[in-house]
Amino acid sequence: LHTRLPAVGTTVFSLMSALASEHGAVNLGQGFPDFACEPALLDHVDAAMRAGHNQYPMMTGVPALRAAIAAKIATVYGARYDAASEITVTAGATQALTTAIFCCVHPGDEVIVIEPAYDSYLPAIALAGGVPVPVAMELGEQGYTVPWDRLAAAVTPRTRLIVINTPHNPTGSVLRAADLQALADIVRGSDILILSDEVYEHMVYDGARHESVSRYPELAERSFVVSSFGKTYHVTGWKIGYVAAPASLMAEFRKVHQYNVFSVNTPMQHGLASYMADPAPYLDLPAFYQRKRDLFRDGLKGSRFTLLPADGTYFQCVRYDAMSPMPESEFAQWLTTEIKVAAIPVSAFYSKGQESGIVRFCFAKQDDTLRLALERLARL
Amino acid sequence: LHTRLPAVGTTVFSLMSALASEHGAVNLGQGFPDFACEPALLDHVDAAMRAGHNQYPMMTGVPALRAAIAAKIATVYGARYDAASEITVTAGATQALTTAIFCCVHPGDEVIVIEPAYDSYLPAIALAGGVPVPVAMELGEQGYTVPWDRLAAAVTPRTRLIVINTPHNPTGSVLRAADLQALADIVRGSDILILSDEVYEHMVYDGARHESVSRYPELAERSFVVSSFGKTYHVTGWKIGYVAAPASLMAEFRKVHQYNVFSVNTPMQHGLASYMADPAPYLDLPAFYQRKRDLFRDGLKGSRFTLLPADGTYFQCVRYDAMSPMPESEFAQWLTTEIKVAAIPVSAFYSKGQESGIVRFCFAKQDDTLRLALERLARL
Ligand SMILES: CSCCC(=O)C(=O)O
Ligand SMILES: CSCCC(=O)C(=O)O
Repeated sequence: LHTRLPAVGTTVFSLMSALASEHGAVNLGQGFPDFACEPALLDHVDAAMRAGHNQYPMMTGVPALRAAIAAKIATVYGARYDAASEITVTAGATQALTTAIFCCVHPGDEVIVIEPAYDSYLPAIALAGGVPVPVAMELGEQGYTVPWDRLAAAVTPRTRLIVINTPHNPTGSVLRAADLQALADIVRGSDILILSDEVYEHMVYDGARHESVSRYPELAERSFVVSSFGKTYHVTGWKIGYVAAPASLMAEFRKVHQYNVFSVNTPMQHGLASYMADPAPYLDLPAFYQRKRDLFRDGLKGSRFTLLPADGTYFQCVRYDAMSPMPESEFAQWLTTEIKVAAIPVSAFYSKGQESGIVRFCFAKQDDTLRLALERLARL
Repeated sequence: LHTRLPAVGTTVFSLMSALASEHGAVNLGQGFPDFACEPALLDHVDAAMRAGHNQYPMMTGVPALRAAIAAKIATVYGARYDAASEITVTAGATQALTTAIFCCVHPGDEVIVIEPAYDSYLPAIALAGGVPVPVAMELGEQGYTVPWDRLAAAVTPRTRLIVINTPHNPTGSVLRAADLQALADIVRGSDILILSDEVYEHMVYDGARHESVSRYPELAERSFVVSSFGKTYHVTGWKIGYVAAPASLMAEFRKVHQYNVFSVNTPMQHGLASYMADPAPYLDLPAFYQRKRDLFRDGLKGSRFTLLPADGTYFQCVRYDAMSPMPESEFAQWLTTEIKVAAIPVSAFYSKGQESGIVRFCFAKQDDTLRLALERLARL
């Protein structure tokens, strides 16, 4: 059997979640909350189902949801996307990312990917026949940063797409205005497109703002901006996301979307549209998660882990090299099975499995869960 | 902008639905019910949401749903699929079909497609870099049949996959045991795979049984069998389907699935799993739809349409050539805008737009809707 992705294994998130539940570990591995979403959101979905919104929605998404998304982007980022022609609802952010890659990457096209990188980018590029060109982030005093000069040097006439991700999974770093400016300088005058994974857009801390690509017209005009409701509303299992892009790009995205999934769960879309009328849930999110981040960081301060900066996302990366010479994957498994706290090895986000003695914890957990994990980690 | 599917337009189903609502036409075009699903199904989904089933499910699907699917296949078709390794839940049947094609079709591989064909097959094959090889059904006294000798002649050393669809959209024809035997004869000894689209599996009429590929071990061992809950449970907008395949094929399918959508809406999966405990809804479906089919056919008997056989699906094809020389697309639009009954031109299911003077009506409608449409069509 000669298949298209022979070398791919099961994603590290599934493996670590399975190991965590097998060993009764506190699961700070795979990124998802262990607390409930707002009941009001469920009420809206239930009302939509009872109102009979159970048949095919429009291929592009339920109009009320697209309008709510466009309104949110306008309010938060001051960017105008036309709800009819520039927003598409997707079956989660992963489908949005893969569909965007499929839409514009031809066999042989190069795609620049900043590493560590979310683990779906590379297989999607491979499936499209593209050639991934990894550029590694640098880790210094300020945490992880993108070396724009090295990224610029990686551009060739075959470069078709640059994938960026801010706030960044797994490092928790966020791009600043100067980063977006550097990116704009690199692509200006070229026909390179940008795929911007912004699923953690509402999790930026310490008063900083999320530098969405949509804020920068020079970038937005060539960008697919991807986000997700799962992260923002504590419903990672609903698998509903969206893409915003200029109409000319969106028209092409939709051609692939139409024949990949056609459309997305109708009652969930209606429920989200109603729920989004209230901006409080996403406006309150930074404070909500910053408190959890601080609780978790404070709890680790006396430990032998070295805390890396955590400026965004619901992830905290830590160095453990003072404490163990194990490779990351082994250390994460040992933490899970022996200390009973699951983590994700950052090496899983590198195409060549680069080791840096760092693992990632997810702090999207109830305070009691975090405290239990901290207690166990304190034994180290 | 040099994209991967430049020539693709908006699917005919979306276009005709938009035209129907613009002109206040009874929509017998796009295939979806205009009646509600069982409230019990909604109760189960709501209960799952309230119970907190809102985070990432397993990548392969919620175990209870996979078990329910395997149990149904065993009961109805006497075929054994292992719920853990041989069933995967998908974001609708379209995603299942496209993912299966991506999993095994390499650039240059030939894929045999029986025409008329559902309109997602060809773009999915094109995206994978495959070469579609259309084989046209023949239309005789018995309705549409597959010319297996011509299909056999289309096989080459590059043939990687044969796509079949039974019950068949748009023709409403169903494959019989002899058809499956003919297919088995063609693939025996080769390494050709089969993708069997069986989303209308529970809509076969006049006491005939659905000849699922899963009934035929010789075929099943090399087949992806695709089905959908949307059609069976009157919730086309939920976009949940599944694939059954032998473990070796399924392992490869999941590699692509994992990076295309990762996983599928959690509460809907739990709701469906609970609802499937009762087999009545799918066991009763043939009688339910046969009555509607007969109501619709009887109503057209005095008209100048010629009724084609309708042995399965919720579609009825009719010849209109006694009444108009218009091409199908024009006739379907005229029906929609002037007679106020929307239909789908069968030419939209042919790669070269072949004309046969036939349009398709969907009879998955309330009796009153069907009567209103019949009244309008009687004026012709
Ligand atoms: C799709 S499961 C992975 C969830 C996630 O985004 C992460 O843990 O990084
Ligand atoms: C995905 S919309 C098309 C619905 C359908 O299967 C049909 O009308 O043939």
